[in-house]
Amino acid sequence: MSDLPKYVEVREEGPREGFQFEQRIYALEQRVELVHALADTGIKQIQVASFVHPVKVPQMADSEAFFEALVPKQGVRYTGLWLNKRGFDRARGATNIDLVGSLNFYASNAFSHQNNNCSADEARDMQREWIDIYEQANIPIESAYIMTAFGCNLEGAVPVERVVALARWCKEACAEAGVPVPALFLCDTVGWANPLSVERLVGEVRRAVPEARIGLHLHDTRGNGAANLLAGLQNGVDLYDSSVAGLGGCPFSGHTSAAAGNICTEDMVFMCHEMGIETGIDLEKLIEAARLAERIIGRTLPGHVQHAGSLAAFR
Amino acid sequence: MSDLPKYVEVREEGPREGFQFEQRIYALEQRVELVHALADTGIKQIQVASFVHPVKVPQMADSEAFFEALVPKQGVRYTGLWLNKRGFDRARGATNIDLVGSLNFYASNAFSHQNNNCSADEARDMQREWIDIYEQANIPIESAYIMTAFGCNLEGAVPVERVVALARWCKEACAEAGVPVPALFLCDTVGWANPLSVERLVGEVRRAVPEARIGLHLHDTRGNGAANLLAGLQNGVDLYDSSVAGLGGCPFSGHTSAAAGNICTEDMVFMCHEMGIETGIDLEKLIEAARLAERIIGRTLPGHVQHAGSLAAFR
Repeated sequence: MSDLPKYVEVREEGPREGFQFEQRIYALEQRVELVHALADTGIKQIQVASFVHPVKVPQMADSEAFFEALVPKQGVRYTGLWLNKRGFDRARGATNIDLVGSLNFYASNAFSHQNNNCSADEARDMQREWIDIYEQANIPIESAYIMTAFGCNLEGAVPVERVVALARWCKEACAEAGVPVPALFLCDTVGWANPLSVERLVGEVRRAVPEARIGLHLHDTRGNGAANLLAGLQNGVDLYDSSVAGLGGCPFSGHTSAAAGNICTEDMVFMCHEMGIETGIDLEKLIEAARLAERIIGRTLPGHVQHAGSLAAFR
Repeated sequence: MSDLPKYVEVREEGPREGFQFEQRIYALEQRVELVHALADTGIKQIQVASFVHPVKVPQMADSEAFFEALVPKQGVRYTGLWLNKRGFDRARGATNIDLVGSLNFYASNAFSHQNNNCSADEARDMQREWIDIYEQANIPIESAYIMTAFGCNLEGAVPVERVVALARWCKEACAEAGVPVPALFLCDTVGWANPLSVERLVGEVRRAVPEARIGLHLHDTRGNGAANLLAGLQNGVDLYDSSVAGLGGCPFSGHTSAAAGNICTEDMVFMCHEMGIETGIDLEKLIEAARLAERIIGRTLPGHVQHAGSLAAFR
């Protein structure tokens, strides 16, 4: 396991994932309390909320107020999510937000049609416009997400070459625009990855775009999350999205406690620390934040370490 | 990942683990139905029940009747668990049981005192007597369990040397008795293992007793289960205990759905198959068995694949 990184960067998605996924709308002060608790753990980037259609996603209708209610902590970035220009304009009008540009690619044509009403190629080509928009707004493009990179429930297996081609396209489009190539996030959107496919895809994308940092956005849909994370670590990936307490959605409903969405932040941090990989995060504070998330949501959440505790007390 | 085995042997512990862990006593016919469903998946060994004190563990008071109610399937072994001679004598009197001898070692002195009222050395020395008992009864000794091999909540970290010494002792005691060295199961009894410690311990035990097959008994107490399994596979371990649906106990209570005991059989089998590792098990039938377990137990169980489904329908 010689390629293990010494340090892993964690991007917390729990607040946006969790409060968006739940049917119930939680009190603003509870949501703020969770973000403040997370900011106190050493996590450097927290996705707070999304700017999406307030009628379609009423849980996120007050995102401006949510950001405004935050008391930002020095050194922590509070990011938002938007899917179109209207959402982006709302985000630009918010306070306390760190505007970070992302590009979005679809490795599955069917999934792009479902999400964007257009083909994967069309969705890809639209990213040129976003590059321009971010450039004009002087917002750095830090991440490019390649969705369903490991497979798609609508379309089946996704060829590695398709993901590699999107990574190359992204690199070239950024080069043409004169902006640095962003971190390329390989997203296991619906739980298709396994450790070998993680190894293969990370290797191929790295060979194609060696100058890009690679990130992984993993879902624990089929119980492989921790193994896929390990495969990422073993292949030198040092950047991960995750969700405190395992907050957030699964693509099938009815089993919210057992079928997690994103991999769980505190379980990931626990594993990294046990393996001697630093994260800059205080695990005990993170466990307290996870317990707070569980109290707020009001039912058992998928994370393990918040229930078992870390090993610190036993050593 | 070149040391991956081509075939992994799964030893199912769900029925004994699950029905013993639950407070409620389930109807005999429900328990039998689950064992029959498991036997139909291709699993070759199922731990059905334990022969323990009927007052202390009333859930297992009718183990003889449980075994008797089974309709054994050719090629499947139905095993039982006992902790003392009284239990062993009960097991010997049962029908439909495959008597398989196991030795039990404790890497933690404190844990041995708690479980056996004696030191780890005394518990170890008692295994000579069990070797004799099994030899006289003409029962093969197939497994030796080294409990808390990765750490102990009562005692803290467990030195690798202590586990290696137990493995060596076992080998020598078996050699003296003229019986083959059994498979050495390294047990992460209370969720202390991480992928690096799995790699290290498997490597050291293999170096010390190269003639022994190594097995892993992993608990998913802190969300590392799948990663520890992957580390085992990467280090050539081809023998695992597991529990259908993630049935079974966790050493802390109150969060039964989120905090698993043993690693989940169908999640493990899914991962193996996705990586091209055979198990001889029909995953779809196993998923049905896991769903049956969930219906019987009556609440959401920790396994993921039974909720998300395999990928077969999407390919």
